Amino acid sequence: MKKSTVPRILIATGLEESDVRYATGLTAPDPFALLIEGPRKHMVVSALEAARARRACPTAMLHTPATLFAKAPSRRPTLAAQVLALLHQLKAQAVTVGPWFPVGVARALEQGGIDVRLVTTPPFPKRAIKTPHEIACIAKSQRAAVAAMRAAIAAIRGAELSASGLLRADGRPLTSQRLKDIIEQTLLARRCTADGTIVAVGPQGARPHDAGSGPLRTNVPVVIDIFPRDKQTGYWGDLTRTVVRGRATPDVRRLFQTVLAAQKQALALVRPGVKSRDVQRAVEEYFTQSGYPTRLTPPGRESGFIHSLGHGVGLDIHESPGLRDEPTRLVAGNVLTVEPGLYLPGLGGIRIEDTVAVTLTGCKLLATCSKKLEYGPG
Amino acid sequence: MKKSTVPRILIATGLEESDVRYATGLTAPDPFALLIEGPRKHMVVSALEAARARRACPTAMLHTPATLFAKAPSRRPTLAAQVLALLHQLKAQAVTVGPWFPVGVARALEQGGIDVRLVTTPPFPKRAIKTPHEIACIAKSQRAAVAAMRAAIAAIRGAELSASGLLRADGRPLTSQRLKDIIEQTLLARRCTADGTIVAVGPQGARPHDAGSGPLRTNVPVVIDIFPRDKQTGYWGDLTRTVVRGRATPDVRRLFQTVLAAQKQALALVRPGVKSRDVQRAVEEYFTQSGYPTRLTPPGRESGFIHSLGHGVGLDIHESPGLRDEPTRLVAGNVLTVEPGLYLPGLGGIRIEDTVAVTLTGCKLLATCSKKLEYGPG
Repeated sequence: MKKSTVPRILIATGLEESDVRYATGLTAPDPFALLIEGPRKHMVVSALEAARARRACPTAMLHTPATLFAKAPSRRPTLAAQVLALLHQLKAQAVTVGPWFPVGVARALEQGGIDVRLVTTPPFPKRAIKTPHEIACIAKSQRAAVAAMRAAIAAIRGAELSASGLLRADGRPLTSQRLKDIIEQTLLARRCTADGTIVAVGPQGARPHDAGSGPLRTNVPVVIDIFPRDKQTGYWGDLTRTVVRGRATPDVRRLFQTVLAAQKQALALVRPGVKSRDVQRAVEEYFTQSGYPTRLTPPGRESGFIHSLGHGVGLDIHESPGLRDEPTRLVAGNVLTVEPGLYLPGLGGIRIEDTVAVTLTGCKLLATCSKKLEYGPG
Repeated sequence: MKKSTVPRILIATGLEESDVRYATGLTAPDPFALLIEGPRKHMVVSALEAARARRACPTAMLHTPATLFAKAPSRRPTLAAQVLALLHQLKAQAVTVGPWFPVGVARALEQGGIDVRLVTTPPFPKRAIKTPHEIACIAKSQRAAVAAMRAAIAAIRGAELSASGLLRADGRPLTSQRLKDIIEQTLLARRCTADGTIVAVGPQGARPHDAGSGPLRTNVPVVIDIFPRDKQTGYWGDLTRTVVRGRATPDVRRLFQTVLAAQKQALALVRPGVKSRDVQRAVEEYFTQSGYPTRLTPPGRESGFIHSLGHGVGLDIHESPGLRDEPTRLVAGNVLTVEPGLYLPGLGGIRIEDTVAVTLTGCKLLATCSKKLEYGPG
């Protein structure tokens, strides 16, 4: 007896966009749909995207409003109406969808008599296991991040100093924004985009997602977090360093050494078979033992190690598998960040982040970049 | 009797991201939720984002896993669990959600006893009516697009020619990719990002969403479509020109004059009170009368005027109101593109696009840019 196949539908918007790109190679400015029925792929796209879709994914069956409504043309059918028409053509009575599928399309399909079943398994589990080609793409973005980091650190090291300890270059204050400009120009020269680059100065660094602003000054830590995306391939890289122009205080130096040691420990643990949770916990315990317990309240005063240790990197900047409190076991081909950080409100933050690929025996950095704390005279 | 209020929930991911940014000023790398209950706003964010959320939207009530699960801490509650906990705190029994709300969260709320009602009205209809500040933000992005267009056209006009009619600069072929580099460097110097810039050469231009590739050559049309987004404000601009290095063929020149005349007609029609549909139809009729009927099949061979005349521009590159087959009447403060185009498979395409703001009496261009077809010797 033939195994009955329930088609799975994905809508390329927001969080499902990278899944659809992974499966078809196509991205588009407006939502479009991918339907997978056993070995067959169907794409529902606008007439405008038909030629691009055919080139991106020659093996998919292509559907447009003109083909779906050939007999009874509807001038502007919704995407839901198009998907429903396709399901009727395929005589499908049920579909599966993921958690981020749009509820408006789900309800429209239900009204059209389709049983819409929510599943939480990822549609393409292999996305977490990168091919050598994918690892090469991520490594390329990571090398661009290293080049941008070096350009940023060179600007910090080469800056002149004002009497009050502000960094200056070309007769103007060297600001967080100017450093981001240097970083993003370096990335663009390598055909990578970056949005949200972090250059957080002193106390700003205590908020891990604060992008930073204002002038750079001597003797305080600057957190520089660079995450470029290759414009052509769509694969990301992710790199963070924390540096001080001049001399760090003993407190900051100890914080830095603790984070550096934690990253070293974590990198030694990352290998096939290890549980994500165990790497996260090892770092948590090390920080606690070092006298930096984690506090998650009150808002704005979180302190210690307040985020997970790492996240997968691929077509999304945050994807599976992460290094955090979950039982997933790592396998060769996973690509993820290892980014311990310690944050002390008022003082600042230290974060050191590299992107690694899990190998058969451990893990390897996709690009290397110095981990020195102090640069130039203060 | 007090009017009962059904809270509306938005999840900041994909298509709802700009609505949430509009209402709160916050963007974040991971999904977060906005709940609106009458005049009150509630935000559900991770501890990591709490400080940023508070600064972005001081009037919102802020909720994090720590505040929502203070009594019974759950180590990694899902966003749906957090939203459900908030709804229970608020004693809400029903919510409204938009079509792009994730079905996974909707189902989890339903299982928690919440009546999830789908509504198709936009949560913030005022997003379509830009304030003077918003118009200034879009105009800034549009001026960046003009600067980039001028840099691109200068490179085309100044290029040397090979014996076979290929454009060259600095001893190398001038390619679509090199022109995109020039465009995007110009945009980045104005702190705008651009992804998907189109430089489509000859026949590539017949596919409106083909980003283009390969060397530029004389005497064929090049479609240049530049849509920058200001990194700080998030507002877009959108500008297209079609140019020929050397001399256009009589066919291409006639195509260009027809598109230019169509845009002029459309710009004269755009004013408060006019129906979107009437502007779209006027252009369709003009093209048909000029001998360019629209054909939408077969895929890859669409011909004529094959897209809508324009789209709203704001925090999204495609938003309401569009210029297309819909009964919406324009009002002062709408910002939209006017971009007629004609596409002939094998030959190429002509598109001319400006971004305008609807004024009290008509519309005004947000930036001006020459509409010449031919540049330099061929």
